[in-house]
Amino acid sequence: MNNLTKMKILKPANEVFEAFVNPSKIGGFWFSSSSERWEQGKKITVRYDEYNARLDINILQIEVNKKIIFQWGANGEERTVTITFYEPDHMNTLIEVKEEGFKINENDFVIEILDNKEGWVFMLTCLKAYLEFGITQLRSALVKD
Amino acid sequence: MNNLTKMKILKPANEVFEAFVNPSKIGGFWFSSSSERWEQGKKITVRYDEYNARLDINILQIEVNKKIIFQWGANGEERTVTITFYEPDHMNTLIEVKEEGFKINENDFVIEILDNKEGWVFMLTCLKAYLEFGITQLRSALVKD
Repeated sequence: MNNLTKMKILKPANEVFEAFVNPSKIGGFWFSSSSERWEQGKKITVRYDEYNARLDINILQIEVNKKIIFQWGANGEERTVTITFYEPDHMNTLIEVKEEGFKINENDFVIEILDNKEGWVFMLTCLKAYLEFGITQLRSALVKD
Repeated sequence: MNNLTKMKILKPANEVFEAFVNPSKIGGFWFSSSSERWEQGKKITVRYDEYNARLDINILQIEVNKKIIFQWGANGEERTVTITFYEPDHMNTLIEVKEEGFKINENDFVIEILDNKEGWVFMLTCLKAYLEFGITQLRSALVKD
């Protein structure tokens, strides 16, 4: 089973794409930092200081302004994320995030995929606020205890 | 199984509570409109014009600035929503939304609870942007097809 979330952002696709790959932008809506520019074949270290988290992501594929595919997760439990940028006209982007690799038979499957959904919807809404209104202070507001 | 989402909003609890119960505010972050002020025992009609949706909610309990409990859903499939406002100090509110009544044995249970999670996280993030930054134009950006 995969986890698919779609959101409309009133900005051209190149601006939405750039927000992910440019390390000077990601801190406005998602991770605190990203070790370098996202490019195909690279391993990127991202940090989320507020949750004391650090993880590596492997960039499997990049189609500039159109698609980013990466893999993350512990050894043997990797999941694949595909972010797609559709641009119906030059002032709108439909962004889709699909995460695959959930193990439906595991005990905590529903809890895990709900937590995953929570993270993606929150990040995408923060991204929309960042790109459309320049708001950078929504992030890290989900309470997880 | 229930669906629980928690978010930190940098405003006092009375402002967060008022955003829900006051029909002049709800259109800034959630439904397009609400038929009247939310009070215990009332049936309120809410509309979401962008999704061509209209539904009734029954307000079961109100504790001013602390808690709202309502029921919604089709006959025989009602679910109960409890919104709780904790105020650790006067400039912060921890808002919790818990929806109960999901039928775990139904075929589409996972799809239904994921869709539900998506809606709550999006609404709460829009609420945060509305109360902290006065942004009213994030709502209705989730794409559901």
